Amino acid sequence: MQDAPWEEDDTAMNPVPRAALGYARTHRRRFFSELKDFLHFPSVSSQAARVHDVLRCAEWLARHLEQIGICNVRILPAGHNPIVYGSWLRARNKPTLLIYGHYDVVPAEPLAEWQTPPFTPTVKGLDLYGRGTDDDKSQLFCHVKAIECFLRSSGALPINIKCIFEGEEEIGSGHLLPFIARNKRELRADAALVSDTKMLGPRRPAISYAQRGGLRAEIEVRGPNKELHAGTFGGAVLNPVQALCDIVATLHDEDRRISIPGFYDDVRNWSDKERAYMARVGPSDEKIRETAGVTHGWGERGYTLYERTTTRPALALNGMVGGHYGPGVKGVIPTGALAKLSFRLVPDQDPHRVDKLFRDHIDRVAPKAVQVAVRTMAPIQPAYLDRNHPAIRTAVFAYRKGFGSYPVFLRSGGSIPVVNTFQEELGAPTVLMGFGLPDDQNHAPNEKFHIPNFYRGIETSIWYMAAASKTLHRGNGRPFIVERQLEWLS
Amino acid sequence: MQDAPWEEDDTAMNPVPRAALGYARTHRRRFFSELKDFLHFPSVSSQAARVHDVLRCAEWLARHLEQIGICNVRILPAGHNPIVYGSWLRARNKPTLLIYGHYDVVPAEPLAEWQTPPFTPTVKGLDLYGRGTDDDKSQLFCHVKAIECFLRSSGALPINIKCIFEGEEEIGSGHLLPFIARNKRELRADAALVSDTKMLGPRRPAISYAQRGGLRAEIEVRGPNKELHAGTFGGAVLNPVQALCDIVATLHDEDRRISIPGFYDDVRNWSDKERAYMARVGPSDEKIRETAGVTHGWGERGYTLYERTTTRPALALNGMVGGHYGPGVKGVIPTGALAKLSFRLVPDQDPHRVDKLFRDHIDRVAPKAVQVAVRTMAPIQPAYLDRNHPAIRTAVFAYRKGFGSYPVFLRSGGSIPVVNTFQEELGAPTVLMGFGLPDDQNHAPNEKFHIPNFYRGIETSIWYMAAASKTLHRGNGRPFIVERQLEWLS
Repeated sequence: MQDAPWEEDDTAMNPVPRAALGYARTHRRRFFSELKDFLHFPSVSSQAARVHDVLRCAEWLARHLEQIGICNVRILPAGHNPIVYGSWLRARNKPTLLIYGHYDVVPAEPLAEWQTPPFTPTVKGLDLYGRGTDDDKSQLFCHVKAIECFLRSSGALPINIKCIFEGEEEIGSGHLLPFIARNKRELRADAALVSDTKMLGPRRPAISYAQRGGLRAEIEVRGPNKELHAGTFGGAVLNPVQALCDIVATLHDEDRRISIPGFYDDVRNWSDKERAYMARVGPSDEKIRETAGVTHGWGERGYTLYERTTTRPALALNGMVGGHYGPGVKGVIPTGALAKLSFRLVPDQDPHRVDKLFRDHIDRVAPKAVQVAVRTMAPIQPAYLDRNHPAIRTAVFAYRKGFGSYPVFLRSGGSIPVVNTFQEELGAPTVLMGFGLPDDQNHAPNEKFHIPNFYRGIETSIWYMAAASKTLHRGNGRPFIVERQLEWLS
Repeated sequence: MQDAPWEEDDTAMNPVPRAALGYARTHRRRFFSELKDFLHFPSVSSQAARVHDVLRCAEWLARHLEQIGICNVRILPAGHNPIVYGSWLRARNKPTLLIYGHYDVVPAEPLAEWQTPPFTPTVKGLDLYGRGTDDDKSQLFCHVKAIECFLRSSGALPINIKCIFEGEEEIGSGHLLPFIARNKRELRADAALVSDTKMLGPRRPAISYAQRGGLRAEIEVRGPNKELHAGTFGGAVLNPVQALCDIVATLHDEDRRISIPGFYDDVRNWSDKERAYMARVGPSDEKIRETAGVTHGWGERGYTLYERTTTRPALALNGMVGGHYGPGVKGVIPTGALAKLSFRLVPDQDPHRVDKLFRDHIDRVAPKAVQVAVRTMAPIQPAYLDRNHPAIRTAVFAYRKGFGSYPVFLRSGGSIPVVNTFQEELGAPTVLMGFGLPDDQNHAPNEKFHIPNFYRGIETSIWYMAAASKTLHRGNGRPFIVERQLEWLS
């Protein structure tokens, strides 16, 4: 792997997008104000009560795309929350870039732990606080503003673009993936660009070249069909909370490995060279502990914390509930208990195979004296990208122009479901060019975004589009007139 | 042990309490109406929001005792909820009976599972539904009405009585027990009578001669001080829900025994004769499964279900909570998790020793990568009573008069904390003469009481008091004038 810059001579990237960059600098204040408008919507995709807010957010975003000059803007039904789509395809004989982002967010709960209202974006120092500031509204908005800079300053983009902004990323993108599969031709592109990952620091960009896949699951144990007095029946009836704890305890062994038989069969072993590269550029154990705010690391022996969160699979208990847990004592044997958990999978694990292994394991360990139900959802394939593709090398250049530094190549522990789909369904290499920071608190209270990264992100996106017009090979993403053929218009 | 009636000739119990029995039959309708008034109070002791309702219930009960002619009625502060006390001590040279009951109830939650409003007592067939109908308001009220029958029909009781009705039984009687210890002299009695246990069927009375003790505990695990993204950190940070499940799973072994080292050291082994008696008179495995509404029994090998719930200790998980368990998915590593549990202890286990063994065990198994806190509360000694004491034999007689049948001697799985205290602090043998039925659903939704047992319970109490005037030995419970000496008046 080549870490050094591939193109020292920037003249190859000419013409310099001077007008667009100038426009970006002139309109910073308005761009920031619009970003705050976007963040005001509590577009929580996993809470039924927020469905209307999610829709209002989609409508606001669509209207905004129209206002900046993007064509063919549509709010396309896809499951619970619509996809916001728009394109600009007038750059003849130029390549096509697919820009992806998501406008949905995770719940803000627990609300008591927020220092500012989660849906009232609030500036503190150089940071903007609020749910969705990092994940993913600010990052998505960098590209929207970059497009505006080109269209408003010179009336044209240097490449063709297709924007696809979804509203179900935080619930597994269950409807987006079939939507892409059904609309392969219309969505074709020479590369896809996604900003939903983290840099190492404010001036230290990073390109994520691998993401873990995933699988969500629930285990529900049903015991007696009414709560029983624990004095009268304790010792003679299997307690569902205890049964669930016993089941959960079988999921890891003493070496902190996941103890589902066959689970590690397909986990890829990486070369010493790759592990050495990861050790050199990746965060140290200490850094990961510090970012997590914990004093002790944990996990599979023989691997660094960075490896445990990237090249090794994991199983997290997201929550559990059963019986009486509120104030006061209540001596009961509860009627049931529920655990929610999520697998993180790595190449070459297949979530569908893991699903089966998991169910087989639960079947084996579930005691007969209770009823145990397993539900699984949101399978996501792990993804691993070619670091030498021109689309990625273009990102190296753009980062250097936007942030003044060369990026390192990192792996990501999370899952961006769409990456794998772009690769598989559209044949588009996907570039993960993130603008978040490690302490942005995604999914946690007090999520924030570093405000300078918003402005640098816009300029980086401008540089990416400018350079891509020369570096990207025009392939199957050529700008053909497809609007009338789109399934979603019928 | 002698199961046959000890006194075939009822004449020894003369005089027959004819006037009191007649009064009881004449005033059934009013008594039942007053019982419903008593049940209307949502006197839930474990919920802070109900503290005012508990107090109103105590006031109602105290006023009622005064109205029926009990002297020296007091509402005595003792912890959160007061003790209602009253006495009638004018039976010169007669023994003294201490009558105990509790006017507090467990929470009605989950409310959705009630077919009638829990605090609107509702008649369906021969049953009265509502929270506290069995446990313990109807049973307590039988004695109150029996006292009224004597006082209103003949102006006097055949014995001296002291009533002590507490409001914290369902939260462990934490303040009653020291109160009794502090007021030993004033509460002295020749026997104590408690109706808070079950019969085998509507015409099959039972005397509980053994109760399990108890100890409540909470295990709280604290992990990261903020929720972490399970993608970013999954595999590198110990998950508190998982850690708690692992800890809970260490509490039982494969033989379904409690695997805390030393836990069984003091558990008494019973003779083959005693086990044979229990097998003959106690409920069958099938009956216990049927009552619990479960298809499978569970528990320690080598023992019947009846033994598992009476002569063998147990540990119940009353509830557990942690992380995100509501609708929707949220891929987090939670900040913490909590389990609530309760031990049931048997002779000769000491809850204080179990407390230490439990804490030592948790210390040993708790992983270093999380913080684990243990809280324990409400230690209750197990109790075992002499079945040949005259106070108990009097109950055999009273049951036969009130219900037409001889009782069997049973063990109880639950804990009545005060029984042990009466025995130890007051030297008073305690008779558990219950009027509940096995399917009364204590502590569960749709709690009920069999209405004929209310009327038969009143008559049984009348017979008990009448007979006790001859059978009980007048000892240290002699009627001395103590009102001015009572600590609680100062």
